[in-house]
Amino acid sequence: MSGPHPAVAACRVAVRDALGDLELGTRIWVACSGGPDSLALAAAASYVGRKHGYLVGAIIVDHGLQPDSAVVAERAAHQVRRAGIHTVHIEKVIVGRSGGQEAAAREARYTALEARIDREGGLAPLLLTGHTMDDQAETVLLALARGSGARALSGIPARRGRIVRPFLNVRRKDTMMACEALGLDPWHDPTNTIEDGPRRSALRSKVMPAMIEVLGPGVVSGLARSAALLQADADELDRQARSAMGTSVSTVRSDEWRCDMLAALPDAIRTRMLKMLAENRGAGPLTATHVAALDSLVTAWKGQGAISLPGGFEARREYGRLVISHPSEEERRP
Amino acid sequence: MSGPHPAVAACRVAVRDALGDLELGTRIWVACSGGPDSLALAAAASYVGRKHGYLVGAIIVDHGLQPDSAVVAERAAHQVRRAGIHTVHIEKVIVGRSGGQEAAAREARYTALEARIDREGGLAPLLLTGHTMDDQAETVLLALARGSGARALSGIPARRGRIVRPFLNVRRKDTMMACEALGLDPWHDPTNTIEDGPRRSALRSKVMPAMIEVLGPGVVSGLARSAALLQADADELDRQARSAMGTSVSTVRSDEWRCDMLAALPDAIRTRMLKMLAENRGAGPLTATHVAALDSLVTAWKGQGAISLPGGFEARREYGRLVISHPSEEERRP
Repeated sequence: MSGPHPAVAACRVAVRDALGDLELGTRIWVACSGGPDSLALAAAASYVGRKHGYLVGAIIVDHGLQPDSAVVAERAAHQVRRAGIHTVHIEKVIVGRSGGQEAAAREARYTALEARIDREGGLAPLLLTGHTMDDQAETVLLALARGSGARALSGIPARRGRIVRPFLNVRRKDTMMACEALGLDPWHDPTNTIEDGPRRSALRSKVMPAMIEVLGPGVVSGLARSAALLQADADELDRQARSAMGTSVSTVRSDEWRCDMLAALPDAIRTRMLKMLAENRGAGPLTATHVAALDSLVTAWKGQGAISLPGGFEARREYGRLVISHPSEEERRP
Repeated sequence: MSGPHPAVAACRVAVRDALGDLELGTRIWVACSGGPDSLALAAAASYVGRKHGYLVGAIIVDHGLQPDSAVVAERAAHQVRRAGIHTVHIEKVIVGRSGGQEAAAREARYTALEARIDREGGLAPLLLTGHTMDDQAETVLLALARGSGARALSGIPARRGRIVRPFLNVRRKDTMMACEALGLDPWHDPTNTIEDGPRRSALRSKVMPAMIEVLGPGVVSGLARSAALLQADADELDRQARSAMGTSVSTVRSDEWRCDMLAALPDAIRTRMLKMLAENRGAGPLTATHVAALDSLVTAWKGQGAISLPGGFEARREYGRLVISHPSEEERRP
């Protein structure tokens, strides 16, 4: 008697490892697009759930961005049931345009997923998404192209709140092989841009193949390993920046900080702290360029004037203090 | 009256900014291959040197890897003189095969450059190399493909010891334009692999164009900006790991450390410390895979046996201690 196909086994092990030990009866939701990643995830979660006594369901989001989107969602629901999950919800959302269609679709998707999980209740339910190692590698490259720091370069977190991503160490092709071995028929988005956007799709079809040709197939796992290492760095440096924030850099005012104390901090801590200070004031999100401009007020001041921050805030240097203010508050300043 | 061509001006500003204020008469050496990067650097260094009273010379390394390498070196010397530098040395080296031709050529090149600088003497001489922002972006991608951490991902340092790289924020095409504007005739390595190796050359001709097509021309400066941010992170975390090394993790033995104290450290500090501990013992250089294996002895011990480290060392766990030993020392253990 032979065991499951190696790709099927790999998917199951990935889900089991990501979940660890949970209470009997824990609710596990799989976010499912009907594509190979999430369909292989549904099958693996169904298997692990049956074995360990978890209640596994699936949620399919119909973004309504194509004329046949309802048909596609029904088709996904059918495949998810064939994968062994019988509790299946389809959530129809309306995607706005704020921040671009890709970001708006993601926002609408996660809002609908979270809302459904809350409605269904249960003790500490989890939501699994099918992001693969290939998605992780693409995310790292996109962050690099923007000139991001360690946090963005660390890519998609394996766990954040109740969202768990078991497949960050599984290759996309293995999810395809798992679906094939299980007789599941995943949907291939013809435009490949609904969830991913055109840049990521072009990265996938044009850049990654060139990288693999030149650098070998290990480049995908290399990118993912770098991301994991940078995540540990970002976690630690963010923690240190947060813990140093309330200390010597403070003044009696909540919108002013001492430039001399800031300048004495290591670059890696100070730049993070400046981002946090501004974002805590309500500005943001700050890009690396904003942070560099803030930092030059602190460490390379030559009398330059105020700089603009997102949200209508501005930062300037006054008598050795870094001041971050909003015009609407100016009248209240002494 | 018009000023210099913008690309020429950019190269001069980059050199001036990188050098800062130096003593009158400081010796500045330009490492020159005859290619556009180093030829533009020679011209800019010559200009800045004349203006500020530095003694600028050039060193050309003849790697002897091509039948006409001596001709190419003489040609480079001629162009360097036309760029305004009249002290020009040609160093002929023999490139071994250890670690691959690319690494061996680099090793031989820097050894010859350093030896010439020492022979010529002078107070705190500097060596400038023509690495550009494009080289930096390629270095980051190569490190990512290997799954490296922040240190390797931070790429080529702008300054290390007496080596200074003024062009890390200058695009390669700007060095080409500067040469053209100055009427200099740079040499284009037909194989493009002597200094760079085949992987980097293929990255340059196949991967970077695809990335620029998909992500836009800003991808090169994005990669360089990420590298700079990661360099600050790596500097700070390395510093913390070094300073934590002599403390609570130590035992009375210099080849044993306390696993409980190591495990209590943040991941970003502990993994760096493990690399330093092993390399200080003489093992190494350790890859990310070695470090992960060491770390699992400390944080995920399930009775696994010894692991092998480069240089014939091995690491194992004994009575809650991490032991890094070499077979040749075993007889001396109690």
